Amino acid sequence: MNQMVARAALRRLIGGRSCSRYLSTSTVAVVRPFEETKAVLWRGHGWGVIGGAEWRRAMSTAAERTSTTTTAPAVEEKDRKEETVAEREKKKEGGEVMVSSYWGISRPKVTREDGTEWPWNCFMPWETYRTDVSIDLGKHHVPKTFLDKVAFRTVKILRIPTDIFFQRRYGCRAMMLETVAAVPGMVGGMLLHLRSLRKFEHSGGWIKALIEEAENERMHLMTMVELVKPKWYERLLVLAVQGVFFNAFFVLYVLSPKVAHRVVGYLEEEAIHSYTEYLKDIGEGKIENVPAPAIAIDYWRLPKDATLKDVITVIRADEAHHRDVNHFASDIHFQGKELRDSPAPVGYH
Amino acid sequence: MNQMVARAALRRLIGGRSCSRYLSTSTVAVVRPFEETKAVLWRGHGWGVIGGAEWRRAMSTAAERTSTTTTAPAVEEKDRKEETVAEREKKKEGGEVMVSSYWGISRPKVTREDGTEWPWNCFMPWETYRTDVSIDLGKHHVPKTFLDKVAFRTVKILRIPTDIFFQRRYGCRAMMLETVAAVPGMVGGMLLHLRSLRKFEHSGGWIKALIEEAENERMHLMTMVELVKPKWYERLLVLAVQGVFFNAFFVLYVLSPKVAHRVVGYLEEEAIHSYTEYLKDIGEGKIENVPAPAIAIDYWRLPKDATLKDVITVIRADEAHHRDVNHFASDIHFQGKELRDSPAPVGYH
Repeated sequence: MNQMVARAALRRLIGGRSCSRYLSTSTVAVVRPFEETKAVLWRGHGWGVIGGAEWRRAMSTAAERTSTTTTAPAVEEKDRKEETVAEREKKKEGGEVMVSSYWGISRPKVTREDGTEWPWNCFMPWETYRTDVSIDLGKHHVPKTFLDKVAFRTVKILRIPTDIFFQRRYGCRAMMLETVAAVPGMVGGMLLHLRSLRKFEHSGGWIKALIEEAENERMHLMTMVELVKPKWYERLLVLAVQGVFFNAFFVLYVLSPKVAHRVVGYLEEEAIHSYTEYLKDIGEGKIENVPAPAIAIDYWRLPKDATLKDVITVIRADEAHHRDVNHFASDIHFQGKELRDSPAPVGYH
Repeated sequence: MNQMVARAALRRLIGGRSCSRYLSTSTVAVVRPFEETKAVLWRGHGWGVIGGAEWRRAMSTAAERTSTTTTAPAVEEKDRKEETVAEREKKKEGGEVMVSSYWGISRPKVTREDGTEWPWNCFMPWETYRTDVSIDLGKHHVPKTFLDKVAFRTVKILRIPTDIFFQRRYGCRAMMLETVAAVPGMVGGMLLHLRSLRKFEHSGGWIKALIEEAENERMHLMTMVELVKPKWYERLLVLAVQGVFFNAFFVLYVLSPKVAHRVVGYLEEEAIHSYTEYLKDIGEGKIENVPAPAIAIDYWRLPKDATLKDVITVIRADEAHHRDVNHFASDIHFQGKELRDSPAPVGYH
């Protein structure tokens, strides 16, 4: 039954639409949010069910045969390229960007229930979530040890030029500082990954936890960029800051992951404070409470009529999670253990 | 009904087991593979359904109150530390490694249907999959351009000392070379991440695709390490090789991602060949066909009686996927486009 439903859905979706050229079986996912559905096993892969929504993937071998002549490996690359030139021209008429390649890999098409295509490539429906906005925003790590105090004062000192540059331009501040915030998680995750490889040790899930954090911060940036466009000198500044910060944090994490995580924890505390001020200015009408961008509505599963205020609220809650994760990671180190000794809090962003 | 089932399951699971200290509501996931179940929304997060299995998470506020006194943010850090010393001692008796922290984050307990705890931290049940072993292993990118030929010949030249060192010790070869194979995806993913941040551009999903590849290669390593223990001089060699390869690939990817991806595509082709030889030696009885390690059975969803042969078969199929992804990525560059212009093949490992 599921195969028939899937094929019917597929015909509806594919009709009139040019198919991407597939070398392996392509698939289409149909989204039905918040209803109970059977899970159908897709060859070789699973899929996600989030909050009751099921994203089913249906086989579309029929669609595949309309767009390629054969998938037999014996076909010369030359012949394939000739086919794809014709197909490529066809796609151009249809307005799609098409990369033709002998190695072209099918990408499952994902659609919403209303038939509209899922517009995002960097996150899939099963990677969206609802943030817990009841998280405690007031928690603060009181610096006790010498290194804690170094970390705390470093962050406080860095705040000074930041406040002078941005003043109360919180949108611009958020947009530019997210380019910085997304660096530590990636640096930390990568260094833990390399460590795991050369020591032949398990990671405790921390590689994923830190990279998830980096990706989440990047999504904050992708959201803010819909609202605040950077000027040319702001772009230059971001380039310069990334060059300095990436290298500095890399070295810091190699020398002392304990201090590195503590610094990030304090940075997140400052971020929470800044976002609170942002919300205050929105509440007082100093910043217009515009409708939320589509990417934010999809990523955080916000209501369709969500506004900037809702977006900043969930972003702030994410920062609180990151604060917790990083202070926790630092505590693990302070207790003389490795991160892998304590399972990572996965599923947090 | 689901809440009642979940609580019943929870009581069964929690009884007699010490609970980790939670600051937020902790949860327990019960796994029932391959049956149709209702999806229950867990506060703030979704979960995965893979191949019909549902991993439900049940609220365990009851369990939480037995292990902490309060979660009110006003409680002094000092008081919390006193509680956790007592708890920590208790955990030590129970043989669990416990890190006490004011910032301690609850980690959902995940169990299988038989009540046994999910033993892995670096991957969760919804991240397991069945590899498509029918993937075409024979595909080869015929080098045409000058840069293609440079990439191809570099890889062929690197094979010479590798073959001399390892000879037919394929287990050792796999274990050590996976420490190398897991580097490119992470380097590429990180550089794309940094680029996305400083250019305020979307990634097309490629950051995730490359990091998934790196993580998959690391899982190959974690599997091989269960079978082949590295000697001290092999560990030293791995350290040295990582130092050289990481930096060399980093520079290569910055200068020419096109060539970098092509090199990785050719490295994967060589890996497929090596694993084929490995399987040949297993088939001829030269290498003992031992039972598959538990991590492999869980990660690739192999049958309980799987053997080394099954493990190498799925690893080889994964390498074939990586070959496709990297040659495809290189093709995109060769056609003068950016990776973000063509949606990444996510969900591949």
